[in-house]
Amino acid sequence: MEKNVKEWMERNKEYGIELLQKLVTCDSVQGNEAYVQDIVEAELKQLELQVDRFVPGEETTSHPFFCANRTDFSDSPNVVGVRRGTGGGRSLILNGHVDVVPPGKREDWTSDPYSGEVKDGKLYGRGSTDMKGGNTSMLLALKCLKELGISLKGDLIFESVVEEESGGTGTLSTIQRNYKADAALIPEPTNLKVFPKQQGSMWFRLRINGQSAHGGTRYEGVSALEKSLIVINAIQALERNRNQKINDPLYKEIPIPVPINLGTIKGGDWPSSVPDQITIEGRMGVIPGETLEDAKEEMASALNAIDDEWLKKHPVELEWFGARWLPGEVPVEHPLLAILQRNYKKSAGEEIQIEASPWGTDGGLLTELADTPSLIFGPGETALAHYSNEYVDIDKMMLVAEIYVHTIIEWCGQA
Amino acid sequence: MEKNVKEWMERNKEYGIELLQKLVTCDSVQGNEAYVQDIVEAELKQLELQVDRFVPGEETTSHPFFCANRTDFSDSPNVVGVRRGTGGGRSLILNGHVDVVPPGKREDWTSDPYSGEVKDGKLYGRGSTDMKGGNTSMLLALKCLKELGISLKGDLIFESVVEEESGGTGTLSTIQRNYKADAALIPEPTNLKVFPKQQGSMWFRLRINGQSAHGGTRYEGVSALEKSLIVINAIQALERNRNQKINDPLYKEIPIPVPINLGTIKGGDWPSSVPDQITIEGRMGVIPGETLEDAKEEMASALNAIDDEWLKKHPVELEWFGARWLPGEVPVEHPLLAILQRNYKKSAGEEIQIEASPWGTDGGLLTELADTPSLIFGPGETALAHYSNEYVDIDKMMLVAEIYVHTIIEWCGQA
Repeated sequence: MEKNVKEWMERNKEYGIELLQKLVTCDSVQGNEAYVQDIVEAELKQLELQVDRFVPGEETTSHPFFCANRTDFSDSPNVVGVRRGTGGGRSLILNGHVDVVPPGKREDWTSDPYSGEVKDGKLYGRGSTDMKGGNTSMLLALKCLKELGISLKGDLIFESVVEEESGGTGTLSTIQRNYKADAALIPEPTNLKVFPKQQGSMWFRLRINGQSAHGGTRYEGVSALEKSLIVINAIQALERNRNQKINDPLYKEIPIPVPINLGTIKGGDWPSSVPDQITIEGRMGVIPGETLEDAKEEMASALNAIDDEWLKKHPVELEWFGARWLPGEVPVEHPLLAILQRNYKKSAGEEIQIEASPWGTDGGLLTELADTPSLIFGPGETALAHYSNEYVDIDKMMLVAEIYVHTIIEWCGQA
Repeated sequence: MEKNVKEWMERNKEYGIELLQKLVTCDSVQGNEAYVQDIVEAELKQLELQVDRFVPGEETTSHPFFCANRTDFSDSPNVVGVRRGTGGGRSLILNGHVDVVPPGKREDWTSDPYSGEVKDGKLYGRGSTDMKGGNTSMLLALKCLKELGISLKGDLIFESVVEEESGGTGTLSTIQRNYKADAALIPEPTNLKVFPKQQGSMWFRLRINGQSAHGGTRYEGVSALEKSLIVINAIQALERNRNQKINDPLYKEIPIPVPINLGTIKGGDWPSSVPDQITIEGRMGVIPGETLEDAKEEMASALNAIDDEWLKKHPVELEWFGARWLPGEVPVEHPLLAILQRNYKKSAGEEIQIEASPWGTDGGLLTELADTPSLIFGPGETALAHYSNEYVDIDKMMLVAEIYVHTIIEWCGQA
């Protein structure tokens, strides 16, 4: 079996590259996922899965865990494919998102951000690492199972979801449509590590108010930008304090286990005027085991504690908006982790590294809301997610496909 | 004569208020000045001045001192009115701009930013202080001269110009059309002080580059926002150093004689990504006597001297764009200053305060380029320029009109 799977992977490497190129050349940013889902749907139909295509609707946008910048998902369908088992086995969800973050500055990319170009064994493009390379590993695993004629006892559910990058609306709606399983695998870019714990996160917006004046008499006003520097310092101190508290060994290799990222800033409307308002948007990591409410409370307290006369009278406005990912935890004793560990060692020839995830994934929703313990394990480079010249190593993608095949067989049971 | 003028002003206070209301209710931001100029033109025609209406054209946009964000001024006409003297006297330009800066946040205003509402002797609205109140003082002075039948030896040139707020294109084009004089008065908001020296200024843009990464592993990237904090510190230090060098007594009451204002900031495109570029726009004050080139050089050196490994490899990009005002200087011994001082004392009953201007005005162009020494003296509140709830004190506006009448008569000579 091991030899068969390995040989199948060698034969199908070119197929995998072409499939990934088809996915990467789709600029499937938020609101533009339909075309890439057409490709996924066609692939699933060829693999003879039962396909279910649907858009998140009102039942999702009214759910208490719904959290997005939009409520219209008409061009953002989920595609789910089910491979029914013969019965008596454990079911498994394979979940991957198809939305990508915007590519950023064009000049930071050596070629087109959606090129899908292959160079030195790497396939380049926005979404290659996060996480269309991982999705391709899963699709290859399904194809291998089919072509090698392997029948499973447990159900296998492949979920190609939208909107992970801003809060998990896609996966939330699959849960509401009753897609649950005994466990889930998510090939987010872990760089071949496995993440049984994952950081949650939430987006926040800060509004810092000043008082406008002519720039030539700027001392007559109060610069919202100068006040923002004080606020940024307070956020940086909060990040330090929160991370000093964390002593989970799964985080010991991670420089900042649960970061607070300041992602955007905008303010002022005239070079010669003192800016009267600055808006900062960011992402606060939530520690596994911590509630979203506790994390929010820490942020609010840190802002309230700022010792500045102006800011005491004109407090920073804090708003939680847009994306939110639940933190998630699967005990390290979970049997799927042991299976994955064993199969990783067999295929990769070394021990798998177990760490805590530096970001939230849809695994938080699956674990916490659908009672489906989720492990994150994928081929992408963690450091390249949301980064220019993003790529995925093709051999790693094929290796993950191979490990998925064995893990699926062992978890679901061969019929 | 003094009594006649004072009585005329009392009789025409209501007229002045209504005229200023007509001007303030026009939202004459950049590119939208035609309507307010219609009002000015009608007024000048009633006053029987020769009216010249023209838009800055290619001869202006190709001038080395041209400096604006646009080259199309088709909806931004200048209006100049000339009152020819009988001969043998000194000529005088009265110059005021009609463009206003944007009003900023609506909620900072207690009523509509363009209301022209009168309350407790103050007329409110964007542009009331900067500088339609001053323009109204000049128009009232012209009306008073006409209605009291005062004939002058020297020419009087009234200039209602566009685009002062971003670099003086309006006044530049009047100079190219050969409007020059023996001196000029500009009623910018000096709060009844007179400014024989004026700060120049230039707009700059800084681009600070970082390296993007996912916010959950933000330590894999380089935050352009964190690097911006270092750059902002360097700019603040540069401002302190430049101002410590200034020991001109005209600046002694001014907290920061020649400020560097950081007016806008913008960067990052996703809350969960490390921002890879931040753009800051600002205004650098230029010291009277300093050349624009010297000031630019100081800014460039300060940025180059920043001691940060990343910024040494990825230097801050510095660009000079948009608006630029020349610094200007009229010697304190200039005869127009003595005349203004004397007439101020007679009408206001106290000594006029002489200071250096905290901002550039079109007087820089007139003084340096048209050999027309310019004094700045107006009714508006300096602190309210570019500020919410901007207003002008109506009695001050009438007082300036009265002082302008006497100063014009004495400078141009009564025929």
